[in-house]
Amino acid sequence: MDLDKLLERFTQGDRRALARLITIVENRSRDLTDVMRQIYSRAGQAQVIGITGPPGAGKSTLSDKLIAYFRKQGKTVGVVAVDPSSPFSGGAVLGDRVRMQSHFLDEGVFIRSLSTRGRHGGLARATREVVRLLDAFGCQAILVETVGVGQTELDIMRLAHTTVVVLVPEAGDTIQVMKAGLLEIADIFVVNKADRDGARRLKNELEAMLHLRPEAPWSVPVLLTEATNATGIDELAAKILAHEENRRERRTEAEEGKERVEEWLDLLRDEMSLRLDRARSSPELADVTERLRAAQIDPYSAALEVLSDGGVIARVLAGRQGDGG
Amino acid sequence: MDLDKLLERFTQGDRRALARLITIVENRSRDLTDVMRQIYSRAGQAQVIGITGPPGAGKSTLSDKLIAYFRKQGKTVGVVAVDPSSPFSGGAVLGDRVRMQSHFLDEGVFIRSLSTRGRHGGLARATREVVRLLDAFGCQAILVETVGVGQTELDIMRLAHTTVVVLVPEAGDTIQVMKAGLLEIADIFVVNKADRDGARRLKNELEAMLHLRPEAPWSVPVLLTEATNATGIDELAAKILAHEENRRERRTEAEEGKERVEEWLDLLRDEMSLRLDRARSSPELADVTERLRAAQIDPYSAALEVLSDGGVIARVLAGRQGDGG
Repeated sequence: MDLDKLLERFTQGDRRALARLITIVENRSRDLTDVMRQIYSRAGQAQVIGITGPPGAGKSTLSDKLIAYFRKQGKTVGVVAVDPSSPFSGGAVLGDRVRMQSHFLDEGVFIRSLSTRGRHGGLARATREVVRLLDAFGCQAILVETVGVGQTELDIMRLAHTTVVVLVPEAGDTIQVMKAGLLEIADIFVVNKADRDGARRLKNELEAMLHLRPEAPWSVPVLLTEATNATGIDELAAKILAHEENRRERRTEAEEGKERVEEWLDLLRDEMSLRLDRARSSPELADVTERLRAAQIDPYSAALEVLSDGGVIARVLAGRQGDGG
Repeated sequence: MDLDKLLERFTQGDRRALARLITIVENRSRDLTDVMRQIYSRAGQAQVIGITGPPGAGKSTLSDKLIAYFRKQGKTVGVVAVDPSSPFSGGAVLGDRVRMQSHFLDEGVFIRSLSTRGRHGGLARATREVVRLLDAFGCQAILVETVGVGQTELDIMRLAHTTVVVLVPEAGDTIQVMKAGLLEIADIFVVNKADRDGARRLKNELEAMLHLRPEAPWSVPVLLTEATNATGIDELAAKILAHEENRRERRTEAEEGKERVEEWLDLLRDEMSLRLDRARSSPELADVTERLRAAQIDPYSAALEVLSDGGVIARVLAGRQGDGG
């Protein structure tokens, strides 16, 4: 099927067309930027909610209950489950994601897992683009769930409007929370499994820590939940909505303009990187590659040489070089 | 001091010149690639040893004992302690790195900490370059120690000749090791704090897991150590040496050529990214930036526009655009 046809079906609400466009994004295909350019203006309506926290905190169960909540409100829901933790196996280790299959047959819920593709910061960009596709498709609430608490997870959470950090009493002290950078990204803290020992103490510690921060336009709440029996979900959903409203009120056109510039620079970087990869065995770069293999030039001199030759780099980046494979 | 002078002092063994060149690398200064180009041919002699594993495994103590071991052999030692875990605070959380100060006054040991600078995969490249500077300076053994077990740590470990993965009995089961990608990168496993319960069981589990792997040119050993009283350090050092010898025997010119090509592509990517950042407020890109701010164009269309205009991108990447600040 050609791209125009696919995009047409996508705009008509065809779930298979959505799935195929997501695959284009996942595989970083040549059509990627063109797809995103064409659907860009359709996105921007969804509420994007990030769910993160250490493994075992109950994020999937919490997501599951939030999906049910939004569905009861009549909203269509998108879910992107991201697992950056397994760079070598390539597959997403999303065991308890199975639980979400309670929504599997629901036409109003679209669930997709993403795992590491490539090493060049591509996962955060791919996640952003899958979210935008879901948004353009018409999903009204989009949950982005990450496993773990590394740099990639923090990068991914930047794209959420509202970031929910889920902890459990046994997750240990609040120092860990600070070290992992969670304090800076949390719009809402959830202490899940709140029936366990130490839940209230963790809540108090978090609140004490939050009070130390300078005046902020949003006061970060610390909520207690028991996701397995849906306790506290209504309050969490209400806080998520309140944060979204607060955010919309605060947002200025200047901020939005700045975000577009930053995204454009990120895209340029990624696109240059992708095009360089595609051109790596093109005739354009054959000579320098050969000299590198033969140790006639070092990698630094070779990089400077290519960059100073405007003709080569311009052709490589315009995608006009011979097709290398 | 100008760059030529600095490089001259560096080649004469001036430690302050080394420190200043490392700062150029850390700050991703304009001179960076030129510095690396000039010192490139002096490097390539050192043995590069990666030390990684979960927090609390005793990596610093182990490094400390290895430094002492190499020093007794009369080798000069470089240490790069990398902490990618604190993207927001900006500073390295290297509390027990203090212990290494036992070597602080030793002229034969050069220790440097690196933490996150920028988000674009720059830490792995900066680490590689600091290691190369230490190598070119004449350090014979270079330890690269990372805190934590995320994607960045795995990327950093790729540059080590020999990767030592340090675990402790209470670190939990071997499934975690596999999930974190440690099985794929380990050339040597160390079960530290071997006097504790479960050390032998962990060793057996790791060995069982290693036996499941297809025939490899190097049989990964699992060693027991008690770093605090230096037990097992001699055996570890011997295995590190054996692995280096095995590696040198196996290495082919074709592999080395391939590595140079990969490094060149990485450098090109990074250098393009750095130059784009420097050009972001240049007159060359002012028009498109303005249209983005005013929402007259979306980021994807803007990226395609810049890339298709060979003149603009060539000038931006050649560093010939007006200086933006």
